[in-house]
Amino acid sequence: MIPDDEFIRDPHVPGPTKLEVRCLVMCLAGLRGHEVAVDVGCGTGGITLELAERASRVYAIDRDPRAISITGRNLEKHGLGDNVSLMNLDAVEALEGLGEIDLAVIGGNGGELRRILELASERLRDGGRIIVTAILLETKYEALRCLRDLGFEVGITEVSVSRGRMLDRGTMMVAQNPISIIYTL
Amino acid sequence: MIPDDEFIRDPHVPGPTKLEVRCLVMCLAGLRGHEVAVDVGCGTGGITLELAERASRVYAIDRDPRAISITGRNLEKHGLGDNVSLMNLDAVEALEGLGEIDLAVIGGNGGELRRILELASERLRDGGRIIVTAILLETKYEALRCLRDLGFEVGITEVSVSRGRMLDRGTMMVAQNPISIIYTL
Amino acid sequence: MIPDDEFIRDPHVPGPTKLEVRCLVMCLAGLRGHEVAVDVGCGTGGITLELAERASRVYAIDRDPRAISITGRNLEKHGLGDNVSLMNLDAVEALEGLGEIDLAVIGGNGGELRRILELASERLRDGGRIIVTAILLETKYEALRCLRDLGFEVGITEVSVSRGRMLDRGTMMVAQNPISIIYTL
Amino acid sequence: MIPDDEFIRDPHVPGPTKLEVRCLVMCLAGLRGHEVAVDVGCGTGGITLELAERASRVYAIDRDPRAISITGRNLEKHGLGDNVSLMNLDAVEALEGLGEIDLAVIGGNGGELRRILELASERLRDGGRIIVTAILLETKYEALRCLRDLGFEVGITEVSVSRGRMLDRGTMMVAQNPISIIYTL
Repeated sequence: MIPDDEFIRDPHVPGPTKLEVRCLVMCLAGLRGHEVAVDVGCGTGGITLELAERASRVYAIDRDPRAISITGRNLEKHGLGDNVSLMNLDAVEALEGLGEIDLAVIGGNGGELRRILELASERLRDGGRIIVTAILLETKYEALRCLRDLGFEVGITEVSVSRGRMLDRGTMMVAQNPISIIYTL
Repeated sequence: MIPDDEFIRDPHVPGPTKLEVRCLVMCLAGLRGHEVAVDVGCGTGGITLELAERASRVYAIDRDPRAISITGRNLEKHGLGDNVSLMNLDAVEALEGLGEIDLAVIGGNGGELRRILELASERLRDGGRIIVTAILLETKYEALRCLRDLGFEVGITEVSVSRGRMLDRGTMMVAQNPISIIYTL
Repeated sequence: MIPDDEFIRDPHVPGPTKLEVRCLVMCLAGLRGHEVAVDVGCGTGGITLELAERASRVYAIDRDPRAISITGRNLEKHGLGDNVSLMNLDAVEALEGLGEIDLAVIGGNGGELRRILELASERLRDGGRIIVTAILLETKYEALRCLRDLGFEVGITEVSVSRGRMLDRGTMMVAQNPISIIYTL
Repeated sequence: MIPDDEFIRDPHVPGPTKLEVRCLVMCLAGLRGHEVAVDVGCGTGGITLELAERASRVYAIDRDPRAISITGRNLEKHGLGDNVSLMNLDAVEALEGLGEIDLAVIGGNGGELRRILELASERLRDGGRIIVTAILLETKYEALRCLRDLGFEVGITEVSVSRGRMLDRGTMMVAQNPISIIYTL
């Protein structure tokens, strides 16, 4: 995995998704190298870069041009991106233009989570998976509910990570905000 | 309990201990109004003020004069302090000068945790309790070990609290750093 | 607070609410001795007993007669209950029959959370508070949403507690399930 | 990753290490296929199987013959094990007999953590890594201290995971015990 501090950042763009969460998402994704993957709300590109290393084709979608720009710069910095299409569009519009996919990772939704999940579901190949990372209580609830309405069996894992900060007087555990990963089974 | 944002703060002084932790410490303390309590490393006075409301006499100890000053100001702001002695001394020196106590809450130790626990133990009345709040891994370990060496049965509770921050787009859970409470049984 | 293991239990009745959660709920409740409090879904009586020690009148409601029975036995065991009315009714029916209240703690809702919150809200005196303890994701979401719909400002605190289990080879931290406390401000 | 419930279990043998922890350990391990890896205290074989898929050679060590047996059966069940040596020995004895290694994952230590870390350190190739997974407070403290004494820079990450259990009435988050991962940088 790429360490958090090796991403170029833009103060107006969220992310990158913390290393531990990227790691768990990639474990759930179970990519074998031949998949088509979509990163909805790519932000700083944390998930996009991990997908670029593990899938055959990646669509990174964000409606904020600054997110697309910083994701592009991060791909370049890490020698990745040959298999990545950057799409500076609303998620709904972008997904409507895509064909079949094997994986959708949804980190941002611009208030259109239900429509995004419907579109991802329609494009999902057999054996494919949808993964939502959520920091908002409402997103957790809606992702769970929408995915069930679409007929999926759904799992949810909540992760709280603290990392040790080494001080002169000892090791202080510094908490990251809890994040939930909602995924189709 | 006094809300966190109703404490006057000094940027050089740690604290106040978060409301949820003060609450759990006071539950463990089980004060009934007639006790002598010591707050070692009083910092901003978070624990001192809660003790002032529940014990008959409180000794608030800190070697940093700024901590003593801000604790004094917080007592005054909340109309407390008649039963509080502020001691601007090293914890060891301060404890050596005290008589019997019913409760010692130890939030700071200046690297002298073992000696502080010995002194508190020697002064502890039957039925009294020692409570250590620890954010450092090393403090957790040492508090547990020293209290056992002193012949106590010991409990430890680790608490992770997240509070909802209400954003336009939803409710984000914001993590506080985990804290451990080590206490004699 | 009453230790968890000093409650008589019935295997068919949930609870008691863990000590740490009872402690935080009581801190939020801020009772001064003269209040009328309702415990909706009293289960084993964990919250009811704490309210009995701190309020002037307590209504403990549960539609399961076994919950009412075990709450009664726990009150008796701890010499409490003179100020407690046990109501073996649906929460909605019970609340409809009550007058003004200062505090409602809602731990169980039988699928009628919205109606329960409406009724509690209608009966709530100025300065009163509604507190929901939730272990289900859906309850968290709905409590937050319903209370806002009713015009309240709302806070939410999520608490994860681990307690040390002392083994021969060391101290293992054993996790309790996370619980959320949603409360009116 | 191999789901937790696809491991054969022996009630007398701990593990398997939970999926989320295996996932994070493998992320930290960063294996590229050519490495020599050691699993100290292999238990049910959770880590051993993941190493078998990612390293060129794996030594799985446990002094309990039942652990060696169940790890062997799990390797076989998943079609792995050609590159795995099962060593039914004390960790110290086993490590003394090994040559250079690229990775040591230490989940069990039989009270000899310091000596195990010394031996692993002596055998570690440039760019190699030692990872300790700890559920005991004492192991966290000692791993951190010993690795520093050996001259390493050390990181520590504590992870708390809850998984949703789908009940008729909603989604209950069920906590796993917190685990710490201590690793050399």
